Amino acid sequence: MIGSHRCRRAFASLSATRASIASPTHRGLKCGAIRWPKSVSLVEVGPRDGLQNELSTVPTEVKVELIDRLAAAGCKAIEAASFVSPKWVPQMADGDQVLANLGRAPGVKYAALTPNLRGLEAALEAGADEVAVFAAASEAFSSANINCSIVESLERFKPVMEKAKVAGLPVRGYVSCVLGCPYEGRVAPGAVAEVATSLLDMGCYSVSLGDTIGAGTAGSTLVLLETLREAGVPLEKVAVHFHDTYGQALANILVALEEGITVLDTSVSGLGGCPYAPGASGNVATEDVVYMLDGMGINTGVDLDLLLDTSLYISDKLGRPPQSRVARAMLAKRS
Amino acid sequence: MIGSHRCRRAFASLSATRASIASPTHRGLKCGAIRWPKSVSLVEVGPRDGLQNELSTVPTEVKVELIDRLAAAGCKAIEAASFVSPKWVPQMADGDQVLANLGRAPGVKYAALTPNLRGLEAALEAGADEVAVFAAASEAFSSANINCSIVESLERFKPVMEKAKVAGLPVRGYVSCVLGCPYEGRVAPGAVAEVATSLLDMGCYSVSLGDTIGAGTAGSTLVLLETLREAGVPLEKVAVHFHDTYGQALANILVALEEGITVLDTSVSGLGGCPYAPGASGNVATEDVVYMLDGMGINTGVDLDLLLDTSLYISDKLGRPPQSRVARAMLAKRS
Repeated sequence: MIGSHRCRRAFASLSATRASIASPTHRGLKCGAIRWPKSVSLVEVGPRDGLQNELSTVPTEVKVELIDRLAAAGCKAIEAASFVSPKWVPQMADGDQVLANLGRAPGVKYAALTPNLRGLEAALEAGADEVAVFAAASEAFSSANINCSIVESLERFKPVMEKAKVAGLPVRGYVSCVLGCPYEGRVAPGAVAEVATSLLDMGCYSVSLGDTIGAGTAGSTLVLLETLREAGVPLEKVAVHFHDTYGQALANILVALEEGITVLDTSVSGLGGCPYAPGASGNVATEDVVYMLDGMGINTGVDLDLLLDTSLYISDKLGRPPQSRVARAMLAKRS
Repeated sequence: MIGSHRCRRAFASLSATRASIASPTHRGLKCGAIRWPKSVSLVEVGPRDGLQNELSTVPTEVKVELIDRLAAAGCKAIEAASFVSPKWVPQMADGDQVLANLGRAPGVKYAALTPNLRGLEAALEAGADEVAVFAAASEAFSSANINCSIVESLERFKPVMEKAKVAGLPVRGYVSCVLGCPYEGRVAPGAVAEVATSLLDMGCYSVSLGDTIGAGTAGSTLVLLETLREAGVPLEKVAVHFHDTYGQALANILVALEEGITVLDTSVSGLGGCPYAPGASGNVATEDVVYMLDGMGINTGVDLDLLLDTSLYISDKLGRPPQSRVARAMLAKRS
């Protein structure tokens, strides 16, 4: 009885057979130690977080087509633009044009990053459905990245939160360096819990935990989520955002799912890391995640074939192969 | 009580901090849905299964140095040679020379693949500590790979098993295509259970389940292991052998650990797939597995730094970067 209470039956789908691979059949699995959700929400971060961290800048019309293709593939939440100073992030200077030219598929949320009031005003004018603010879990990273302490960065967001509330715009909070910092090394899980709590208290409807350097493992992911739970952070308001630098992202996601997380940030084609640099720190590829979830019988609403076409579209525009392992393997099968 | 009975406390180690990453602290984790073993045995297959599937053939002295370095890094079971016809596998023609020139570190088992009686006799003469036979879970693959049916292949091994028993030599059984076949596509988990049972009944002390095309997911891995358990295959005699073609290997390993598997086949530097071919099907890299297990507080006895040096040694000899994500990331940090 306890087993059936704690575990959900995992119905494995046949969707993965499109690649003529062995996939589980439609039957209820014994639960063992496994608890997997029936469906998962993906937040596609490729067009913003991804492209912002690529070496080359792509034209507005390519961003628009990328986003429209992602929506057509079934993505329901897409980070489309960033309203930050073009002096700091020139790749994202065309955010208003991107949002103005999108297809606006019904049921799809188009989000924008807004670090300050000016950004929020621009996002409102451009018609973003949702905005996001960000803080670090590491003081050294906060200082290096946005030139202020963690507490100062949270203070700066207060007017953004207030204005967004008045405008009825949902705000998402990002926390970076949750499983390690390029400057400090280890980051205490308790520090992550504090920042996440602050962002939720300020009015963020959800916080996304980013393993910015991609060094986390199944072990550190588990410790982090257990710490958050103990600290009273409601895990249904938590998303995870893994980078695949050490190849650990899918295993980390699996642990997160088993801990009750049902929102995952992913990036089509693994956008966000240069494939020519050894140790490049790209986001986990949406294709790799969808392939895994399809095989686990977990619904994402995303069509893997259309997603693969989208991955090839953008990697072609960037002039390099997809960072996604699934895209590369399926590409080899197609050719 | 049921929780504490079913779950083992996972003590996360600080060993991963050598890469100055966030690692879990030394404390007992709440078990949640997670059951992780305290230690895991790795079977290093790089020098045989790996090098056999590389484009270039390496000289005997390089194989010997590779194996000796692996032993020095803490590998306790190393697949060192193959005694098959050099007409079919020219890369492995020097098996006797490799075994004759090894350092023979105490406590390390050096194994050899022996598909027939002639191979077994050669392995005995060369002083292998253990031998291995192999069968497919797919008729089409068996036919294409070794030109006979699955039942015929098992029949052929009987004299090998008998002679090995007389000589007191342990025999490991490999099953290929357990999560998909390049010719048949889907492979029934029940077919894997049948072949595994036959190999154990014939006298193999353990069977290693190979996802030869690397297309398995956490879902199909779970279905497979549940099917084996239901069919009465003792999972303590089962090892898993994943290829990382679709980037799923670590997630699959995580599920296997949670299902009670404690023996993993891995390949240093991800040997066994060409990094220049898109979709190349290399073995999961030992470095990637050790990094994950270190972060989970699971003991392997392998030193990640020495392993990394070994990975760089062999990839340098092959004239290409390591296939391991961890090796590439750590290499980028070193430079």
